[in-house]
Amino acid sequence: MKRTAFFISDGTGITAETLGNSLLAQFEHIEFERITIPYVDNEESAKDAVQRINKAAVIDGKQPVIFDTIVNQSIREMIYNANGFMMDVFESFLKPLESVLESSSSYSVGKSHSVPDDDSYKVRIDAVHFALDNDDGARTRYYDQADVILIGVSRSGKTPTCLYLALQFGIKAANYPLTEDDLDDVQLPKPLRAHREKLFGLSIEAERLAAIRTERKSNSKYASLSQCESEVRGAEAIYNRLRIPYLHSTHASVEEISTRILAKTKIERRLQ
Amino acid sequence: MKRTAFFISDGTGITAETLGNSLLAQFEHIEFERITIPYVDNEESAKDAVQRINKAAVIDGKQPVIFDTIVNQSIREMIYNANGFMMDVFESFLKPLESVLESSSSYSVGKSHSVPDDDSYKVRIDAVHFALDNDDGARTRYYDQADVILIGVSRSGKTPTCLYLALQFGIKAANYPLTEDDLDDVQLPKPLRAHREKLFGLSIEAERLAAIRTERKSNSKYASLSQCESEVRGAEAIYNRLRIPYLHSTHASVEEISTRILAKTKIERRLQ
Repeated sequence: MKRTAFFISDGTGITAETLGNSLLAQFEHIEFERITIPYVDNEESAKDAVQRINKAAVIDGKQPVIFDTIVNQSIREMIYNANGFMMDVFESFLKPLESVLESSSSYSVGKSHSVPDDDSYKVRIDAVHFALDNDDGARTRYYDQADVILIGVSRSGKTPTCLYLALQFGIKAANYPLTEDDLDDVQLPKPLRAHREKLFGLSIEAERLAAIRTERKSNSKYASLSQCESEVRGAEAIYNRLRIPYLHSTHASVEEISTRILAKTKIERRLQ
Repeated sequence: MKRTAFFISDGTGITAETLGNSLLAQFEHIEFERITIPYVDNEESAKDAVQRINKAAVIDGKQPVIFDTIVNQSIREMIYNANGFMMDVFESFLKPLESVLESSSSYSVGKSHSVPDDDSYKVRIDAVHFALDNDDGARTRYYDQADVILIGVSRSGKTPTCLYLALQFGIKAANYPLTEDDLDDVQLPKPLRAHREKLFGLSIEAERLAAIRTERKSNSKYASLSQCESEVRGAEAIYNRLRIPYLHSTHASVEEISTRILAKTKIERRLQ
């Protein structure tokens, strides 16, 4: 069974998408076609959106589901009158919020992700550049500025996690690869030894690692299962011996790895 | 006036935060302390969360607001019984969704961001590595694989935007800096000429650019207002002359720049 889901917003559409995808994930047996329509902030774009909704309703033979975060009442009514079933986020939550906060909402369009203040812009960009400059052990002399240093074998998920921590939370995350030499010695590489309290390890199932490495260099020693098994075992031996906190990246998304690191280490976010 | 807002989830907490922050942004005159508690998936962590809510209620003298995305009914009831005002996302939306979709929800815990399938993991990681390898004009020979190539003067926001496009949407985004030489000639740099249809320009107000560059290299020609004015003018002249689509990054978040690029170019996301 196939249904269409629309995420419609006067801003980026990220809130509507995030919320909608969380809810749709609860319906595993339905295949959804997902359509995001951002920046619906005038009559013309609202009319276009209505047309697309009505067309999907005809094709599917069922009403599309609509998740909307549109502040403007008259634009929202236009979408409401389309042939879809509207999960109206602001309608559902703003009134009760106004009452508990004893305050009127400002009903300002596209508020949530636009107009970042200069400070948070700087925090975020600095963190991104920090992650880039300190990726994969490229530079180690700024580790005193790092909030966290991820360690792990090649392709265990360090780089995307550092970038996500930077973009989402403004956290300065460096990463350093554990190589065969380090693993054979069950020793921390020298540049890391002064920063034990900032280290966080990633581990991964050897089979998964071999599959990921095979994508990159098939039929290499690097991608062989025995090599992956030995490296993973070596990395975990280091984590355990030195009591470095770590987690498995195997079945986790970048979002989950990142938020679990925050939860375990209690590192403070620099962005809210 | 200060109020406390909790974002509580059995998963990453990203949905609760995203939704909650969108709604709280509508109350500009209230200062919120924001506390995210992820992975509340057992009685013990729920009890901890309840304690923190109750404590905040005492300190503030007002009920905290709680945005929760907890699937488990009994965990959710524990939070419900804390001294807070609960905006219950699943309670509000799952029932109506079940009825319009004519299907029961699976009520499975922490569904939305965990257990990514292998294909989408690969798409995402490939895109991240593509952005890193093709950052700042470092490599240009893989531009035929790029979905988009961002161009703009130094520090106009190209790198964070490319990384966000990669992480969020799996889009392969390269970026190339426009330097003084290019700008003087009002010409595209050579490596870009064969890829005109993939180019997207970023521009920025000269004052803002000067402020950003001053953070990096104060009192340099690079950061001077006159230099920034001339570079920005030159870049926009190229965009206009060659009809390269572009937008201003000045007052926009990375999310807004990224989603506006998608909306303008109609590039298809590789991740949903």
